Formats: sequence, structure tokens, C-alpha cells
Amino acid sequence: MIQIGIAGSSDPKPLEKAEQKAREFARELAKHDAILLTGGRGGIMRVVSEEFSKLGGTVVGILPEKAEGNEFNTIKIKTGMDFVERSAILVNSSDVFVILGGGVGTMIEALMAYNLRTPLVILTDTGYESDELEHLAKEGYFDHKKIEKVEFTNDPKEAVEIALRLAKA
Amino acid sequence: MIQIGIAGSSDPKPLEKAEQKAREFARELAKHDAILLTGGRGGIMRVVSEEFSKLGGTVVGILPEKAEGNEFNTIKIKTGMDFVERSAILVNSSDVFVILGGGVGTMIEALMAYNLRTPLVILTDTGYESDELEHLAKEGYFDHKKIEKVEFTNDPKEAVEIALRLAKA
Amino acid sequence: MIQIGIAGSSDPKPLEKAEQKAREFARELAKHDAILLTGGRGGIMRVVSEEFSKLGGTVVGILPEKAEGNEFNTIKIKTGMDFVERSAILVNSSDVFVILGGGVGTMIEALMAYNLRTPLVILTDTGYESDELEHLAKEGYFDHKKIEKVEFTNDPKEAVEIALRLAKA
Amino acid sequence: MIQIGIAGSSDPKPLEKAEQKAREFARELAKHDAILLTGGRGGIMRVVSEEFSKLGGTVVGILPEKAEGNEFNTIKIKTGMDFVERSAILVNSSDVFVILGGGVGTMIEALMAYNLRTPLVILTDTGYESDELEHLAKEGYFDHKKIEKVEFTNDPKEAVEIALRLAKA
Repeated sequence: MIQIGIAGSSDPKPLEKAEQKAREFARELAKHDAILLTGGRGGIMRVVSEEFSKLGGTVVGILPEKAEGNEFNTIKIKTGMDFVERSAILVNSSDVFVILGGGVGTMIEALMAYNLRTPLVILTDTGYESDELEHLAKEGYFDHKKIEKVEFTNDPKEAVEIALRLAKA
Repeated sequence: MIQIGIAGSSDPKPLEKAEQKAREFARELAKHDAILLTGGRGGIMRVVSEEFSKLGGTVVGILPEKAEGNEFNTIKIKTGMDFVERSAILVNSSDVFVILGGGVGTMIEALMAYNLRTPLVILTDTGYESDELEHLAKEGYFDHKKIEKVEFTNDPKEAVEIALRLAKA
Repeated sequence: MIQIGIAGSSDPKPLEKAEQKAREFARELAKHDAILLTGGRGGIMRVVSEEFSKLGGTVVGILPEKAEGNEFNTIKIKTGMDFVERSAILVNSSDVFVILGGGVGTMIEALMAYNLRTPLVILTDTGYESDELEHLAKEGYFDHKKIEKVEFTNDPKEAVEIALRLAKA
Repeated sequence: MIQIGIAGSSDPKPLEKAEQKAREFARELAKHDAILLTGGRGGIMRVVSEEFSKLGGTVVGILPEKAEGNEFNTIKIKTGMDFVERSAILVNSSDVFVILGGGVGTMIEALMAYNLRTPLVILTDTGYESDELEHLAKEGYFDHKKIEKVEFTNDPKEAVEIALRLAKA
């Protein structure tokens, strides 16, 4: 089954706009056969996991160190590694990766996906700094190596659609 | 749900006695609510995953580098790390760990479980070198720190029973 | 002794402007007591290591997988991990981190340093995409958590000066 | 230059016999051109690092998480990973690996070296559980794959001699 990874702010109280879009993304994704992978912690990650698991989906949390993570992880992977290193395992394990709005940790995961050649969809207009990635990506690429074209959309339903298409490619 | 990790030889053609015991272990485990975690590759890992998934169970393969692993992994975690490093993630993520017979990689995972304080059950009389761990463990402990008592049994059904008891502890 | 980490493009033939600045940075740094840490590979990393080791400095290469790296590594750390994961070890091990110009791998290391609270100096006007980080950092911070203020300069000598000051702080 | 890794107990007060042998090993090694790699912490690791650095040698400590380690590390690699995972980086980075006496952590590193095909020398008669590895290794091999023959000696000077020979091989 397709493994869809997401990244988003771990802020305990995420920005309302980002949270709403994340919930909509999760409900839309739950209509399809897919396994959800997240960094396993709070904020946007928790919100997406809540919606997705309430609708019967399986959530895999890739956790830093021996953290237990949020209560909606169906499966917990305890990496024993710091939060930045464990991000690479999350991205590596994803057939496609979706950015749902966040700060520096989220932006690192976006750039990792590009660098590791994992197809990448970035949801914009979330209010978070990750929105700026659209300016950083000239013609859809983060650097001169043009590793893999990044897709941007401000619509969470379209983000699901693009993600499923790219994962199947 | 309980996450039960197993270790076993990656030999493409495992020893017959070990393979039979591993299949029996998997069928017994499938009667209970548990998620199976393995190193995701061939040999004993593949055999256990086959039996367990045929009976409806979910198998998580914690893979080295970007390996795709055997065909019975329900979920694939691609660690990007070498096979020894990824073993630690497998052991860290397990609520209890069961040794089903193998060589040096399997023995490393047994010692890691003890060292990381993950409850450990070792199935003996498999024909593999991991059988020797019973001699290495004086009074059930691998060293003077007496971190966690190791359980030994030569009966795969009893191995399931002990594992479920320890995981619940 | 202070451990100064650097990041830069692994392009076999780096941009001339970036290379000249990197060489100047290395020669200036060699006047001081410091150990140089790099990702151990080619391009800007190799150029900096060459200048620094020619002047008697010790270079530690933090390598992906079992790569041997460039010929100017005094000490080789073979992480067994993919290139993105090993970047976190490089950044974690640095008392201060300096960006000398590069693409996505270099930008990831810059964001990691900020996220891991390693003091960060970014050399600009190199011709590489990492120059854009100055626009990404509003008032010197990559996100709303304002973890650690980032310093920018287009002068390699000043980059050394700032790095030594921050590392000592 | 040759990178020699060592493993030994982190017991704050190591067994006297093991400590004496470890000091003798370090003094003998310091007569040769080599860089010493350790897990960076206390006990036998600290004792060896003390002797080796007092005689002018360079010591690299491969540390778990962000630990600072003992005071005799010339260079500190902060892996951000748990102590078992960082062991693999220590072993991977060593041209040859020497066991100086220890418990389960030390035994794990011995088996990792064998599994990762790093030449391995085991100093016996230290009083620690790692002495038992001689019984585990039938005809010098830990398993049926016969990956790399392990050398045993109870003499620390001979351990240096064997290590230098194997590293050069």
C-alpha cells in the first residue's frame, strides 16, 4: 500500500488556518488506500493523525529517541535518534511526502525529500514559514541539480490528489 | 497494540528445524492482537512474516538503507542506515523481542535488547549459533549489570506465551 | 579545541567565486587553533580541507555510508548512514557551523544548525542557492521559534572572526 | 593514518586487572603512528584515552546523543544517536578494532566488528564477560558465515602488534 508521509508544525496550538487545512487533507486522504507516516509528535502531526485514524486509517509515527508520541499512532517506531536524524527516516520511508505547514523542522523535511528524490507536495497559504519554500524553489527546483520537481498547491484536497498521482508514478 | 519484534537468520535457505519453529511461532502469535516487527529481509524473517500476514497480521519491516525487503512487509521503514544500525531501531521499537535462531546479526540484536532493557525471549534448539546465548547468560543475565533477566525456551508456543506476558508487564 | 564545521557544494567543479572565498576562509581559519569538520566529500568541502591541512590543520570528515571521502581528511568517520542523516552528526559535533555556498544539501545543514541550536554563520555572495537563506531568515531567524540568531557576511575573513567569537560564547 | 578503535567497560571503577592491561595497551600503542577511537565515555575508555593522550596521541570520542564524554577526547563526535547505534559508527570508522574487557556493550561492539568485517582482536583474561567471547567463537568465527577470523590474546602488547598487522593488511 502507498506510504504517504507528512510534515507539519509541532506547535501545541498550531495556526488555525494550517490546522483546518491539515484536517481537510486527512479526511480526504482517508477515502483512499494509504498508510500515513508522520514524525509522531504533537501539533499538526497529531491533528492529521487524529482525523485519519478516526476514519479507520493506519498511522505510523517515526519518533525521536524513545518518545511515545501522540495518542493516534497505530504503530510507533522509536528511532533512538535525535529529531533531525529521525526526519530522514520518515522521508526515506515515504512514497510521496506532503508539507502541511510548519517552521524549520518542516522545512528541513521538505528539502530532505527533494534531496532524497522523494516526490514532494507543498501545501501553501498555511501561515507558517514553510509557505516561503515556494519562493525558494525557482521553477519548482530547490537547486541547480534539478533533482525532482516540487509541486505547490494551496488546496488540501488537491494536495491529496497530486500526492496519490506522484506516488503511483 | 503490542509490538513484538523478532530476529532470525537471513540465510535464503534457513535450517529446517529453525524454519519449522519460526512458522509455528508465527501461527501461534497470529491468534493474538499484536503487530510483528522484523528486520524486513529474507530467511527466518521472511518465513515468519509470511505465516503472520497470511493469517491477517500486520508486519512492519525495519529495513537497512533503501532496501525493499521481502514481499510480506505490510509497512516498510527505510532507515537509510546500515544493517547493524537499523537493528537498534528494530529493538528500540519492540515492546518485547524474540530470538528465533540465527548467526551474528541475530546475536547482536539479542544483546542489544538486553542492553536497551527490552524484554527478551530466546528460542533455543534451532541449530543456529544463537542457541549458544544460553551458555553466555549466567543465571539469565549477559553481564554483571544484570539489566534485565533473559527468558529461554525451546518451545515456540511457549515463546509466544512468555513474550505476551513480558510485553504486558 | 574549538570544532568548526563547514558546509559547501559537493560539485566536482564548484563555482569560481565560491571556491576562492572558501580557500580564503580556510587560510584565515588556519591561523587559529581549531579543528575543521566537513562532510568529507568533494567540491567546496575538498577545497577547504586542502587549504586547511596544507597549513597543518586537522580535518575530520564525517562521511556517508562507508565512503572514503577526499584525500585531505586527517580523520575519517564512517557513519554507515545516508548523506542526509550523516549531516546531522556533522552539525551536532560542531561548536559553530559555517555555510560556504552550496545547493540543497548545504541548505539542509544550515537549517539543521539553527534547529539544533548550533551557532550559524552564512557566507553570502557565493553564487550558490544558499545565498537565498538571507531572504528566508527574517530578522536573522528561520522561524517563529527564534531559536538562535543567524549571522550573515559576504567576507570570508569576517566569517572566521564571527565563527570564533560565537564558538567561544 | 591508521584508525584503531577500542571497546571496554564504562564502569566508573573498572576491574583492576582490566585497567592495568588497558593502560599497558595504550602505552604500547602510543609508540606507533595511530589515531585512537573510543566510545568517548568513562571506565576503560577513559583510562586508555588518558594514557594515549598523555603520550601525545590523538583521541576521537564517538559519543552518544550530545554527551560531552571524558576529558581526554581530543575530538568529540556527537552522534545524536543512542549508545548502541553510535557503537556501529565507532566500529565502521575503525581500521581494526580491539576489545579490552567489558560487559554487554563491549560484546555488542565485538560482534558488530565481526559482522561489519572490521578486523577484530580480543584481549582475554580481563575478568570481564567479554572474555567469554573466546568460547563463543568456534575456530575463531562467531558464526557459520565465517566472515572474518577473530584473533585472541591475553597479552596487551601482543594485542597492539596483532592490531597493527591486521590494520595494515
